[in-house]
Amino acid sequence: MALPGFRDFYPDDCAFRNAIFSKWREVAHRYGFVEYDGPPLEPLDLFTKKSGQEIVTQLYNFKDKGDREVALRPEMTPTLARLVTARHKDFKKPLKWFSIPQVFRYERQQKGRLREHYQFNCDIIGEAGLEADIELIALVIDTLRAFGLTEKDFVVRLSDRQFWTDFMNAKSIPEDQRYAFIQAIDKSEREPREKTAEKLGPLAAEVFAILDDASTGKSERLDTVETGLRHRGLQDYVKRDYTVVRGLAYYTGVVFEVFDRSGEFRAIAGGGRYDNLLKNLGDVDLPALGFGMGDVVLGEILKKNNSLKNLKKNNGIYVVIADENHRPKAMGLVQQLRDTFGLPVDYPLVPMKVGRQFQAAEDQGRKVAVIVDAETGKGQVVSVKNLASREQTIWSIEDLMKSEVLK
Amino acid sequence: MALPGFRDFYPDDCAFRNAIFSKWREVAHRYGFVEYDGPPLEPLDLFTKKSGQEIVTQLYNFKDKGDREVALRPEMTPTLARLVTARHKDFKKPLKWFSIPQVFRYERQQKGRLREHYQFNCDIIGEAGLEADIELIALVIDTLRAFGLTEKDFVVRLSDRQFWTDFMNAKSIPEDQRYAFIQAIDKSEREPREKTAEKLGPLAAEVFAILDDASTGKSERLDTVETGLRHRGLQDYVKRDYTVVRGLAYYTGVVFEVFDRSGEFRAIAGGGRYDNLLKNLGDVDLPALGFGMGDVVLGEILKKNNSLKNLKKNNGIYVVIADENHRPKAMGLVQQLRDTFGLPVDYPLVPMKVGRQFQAAEDQGRKVAVIVDAETGKGQVVSVKNLASREQTIWSIEDLMKSEVLK
Repeated sequence: MALPGFRDFYPDDCAFRNAIFSKWREVAHRYGFVEYDGPPLEPLDLFTKKSGQEIVTQLYNFKDKGDREVALRPEMTPTLARLVTARHKDFKKPLKWFSIPQVFRYERQQKGRLREHYQFNCDIIGEAGLEADIELIALVIDTLRAFGLTEKDFVVRLSDRQFWTDFMNAKSIPEDQRYAFIQAIDKSEREPREKTAEKLGPLAAEVFAILDDASTGKSERLDTVETGLRHRGLQDYVKRDYTVVRGLAYYTGVVFEVFDRSGEFRAIAGGGRYDNLLKNLGDVDLPALGFGMGDVVLGEILKKNNSLKNLKKNNGIYVVIADENHRPKAMGLVQQLRDTFGLPVDYPLVPMKVGRQFQAAEDQGRKVAVIVDAETGKGQVVSVKNLASREQTIWSIEDLMKSEVLK
Repeated sequence: MALPGFRDFYPDDCAFRNAIFSKWREVAHRYGFVEYDGPPLEPLDLFTKKSGQEIVTQLYNFKDKGDREVALRPEMTPTLARLVTARHKDFKKPLKWFSIPQVFRYERQQKGRLREHYQFNCDIIGEAGLEADIELIALVIDTLRAFGLTEKDFVVRLSDRQFWTDFMNAKSIPEDQRYAFIQAIDKSEREPREKTAEKLGPLAAEVFAILDDASTGKSERLDTVETGLRHRGLQDYVKRDYTVVRGLAYYTGVVFEVFDRSGEFRAIAGGGRYDNLLKNLGDVDLPALGFGMGDVVLGEILKKNNSLKNLKKNNGIYVVIADENHRPKAMGLVQQLRDTFGLPVDYPLVPMKVGRQFQAAEDQGRKVAVIVDAETGKGQVVSVKNLASREQTIWSIEDLMKSEVLK
């Protein structure tokens, strides 16, 4: 048994996971992002420095044999901050970096709740202008579009932390009440209205008006972002929604969360601008923004939508050895086919009835069988059978290696 | 700072690492292997059950918050055994499975010694015949060939644990001395001959004769394997060498280690048949064999040979915005190019002099610049400049989207 909350990836699960990773990489590359990675194990203080000591209760942390306080990474941003601040002078700004770390949390075990997941992290570092926010939000949209999801399937809820900071300034909310104010907004969707109203006090009516009708809240930043997305034809994927504040304290500007339209699942992705974090963590004053997208909720949605269902599509070759006397020739052929086509090529490791070999070819989802039998075994020819059409033809090996029939 | 012995992967390092992973996957797929994975953290007893309590001194192990003894995996085989024994009835035999886990060891820190690395693990499960050994050894050879290495660069040293078992039987070596005997052979290359001779006692001369001239040691198994590799044209990549015993106790048949011909590096890969392991670990009697290949030694060899050096080859598009009035049009174009070609498309996030934009395009290794300026900005046309040839031509956007010029 695996540890509670950890997943095994049997071949079908692994293919599904890897198909998600491939799409993530493909879209990030399309946007000119480059990949980085760091250790899954980091010094504990890398995480407490960012999130405070409270985080420790949620971490997979321990003391190692060298008496170091260490933790399995719960998120990638502190590692990113560490990498960037250490060598930021080596790189032209803005950095457009992504990573696909496995991250870990030790939370009280709930049924079906995982203690690890993979997270697609994309960050832009070194650009304060809103064009970077637009680029990042376009990336999160295009990532989901790459899986075949449309504006009918998901929505990016756009908000602005600075809007609320300005609001709190205008209302002269004291510093020590601001965290609670933001928390109240953050929880407003999941709590009865009376409870939120109680927390917000005399400001409740005004805040609810903004939450209920985002058009009453003015934000030039969001106007610019929405216009930028319109230039890219992506306007139907976003909706202004000031409820979104992204609980964590460190966001400074535009923030967003992505949800499925049906409301059935938890957030698909979330992120925003965190211009002060690198300065606070590594004393390097670089504006930054990013998002994270996990593989679990996305995977559930893709399964519901029947996306990625053709992973085991017909491909590759099965070499049928119909006459064991010609196994040596067949093995030379297997080698040549693998070298030439770079396709999966399989064959029976032991003598096997021809019918069972064709069955194996079918089980493996192969497209073509190349048959070496008593007849073809003698010369430089083989039979080729298309496993879908059942058509069978004789080929010279030389012609076969140049043809497209196997692909 | 990362923890001692852990690597950071800045974008260039990550590209190099991922290029290794891609080749590994590509060749494994070519051989009809499918990928699996498991958790990096496992119950400690999964590892002690296989390797005994001694292994604990080398493990990254700890007690988790649920009071479980756990460890970061030092190798993949126990996880593979766990997965296969739990569900072996769901899969047709033989299984041809591979994985690319990161594995961890907490050894006394030496200069430059890593505490983690990635390991390409390939295993065939459920086939006792030697054709499986041949297939596995061909795979290890073709994996290295895929990186451009030839028979001049590396050699697979083939041996046979059963040969030594038979030898010990013939000489009536008592059970309790057999482990020491195998260990003496294992260390014979790295120790002065006198020391090995002392360990081997009266058998020393006979053993040395076999170690010095492998042709004096008879093994039908190795004869068969060599013949099988010859049928595939891979005979020049192997050399019989009975020194190879693979320290670990659990190997049962053909074993092998891969070294660079120059002798400059540690082993590139190693493996062999371990027919009793699944029975011992999971009470499922399935023959099995496999190898592991790390990314570190391989990476050093590839760097020395200047392989994988063209990772940052010219590709993708840079959209030069020469007139900021036309940024909206340019952004629509960026979106369209990314959608249509799936290539990296980058552009200036902020207004920038045209010369600096071309410089950025060059820094990023882009192949083509698409230029939106005061002239082309007005209509459905753009300038396209090949950054190598410096040739510049005007294209209608419609034609451009259908052409091959950007690829």
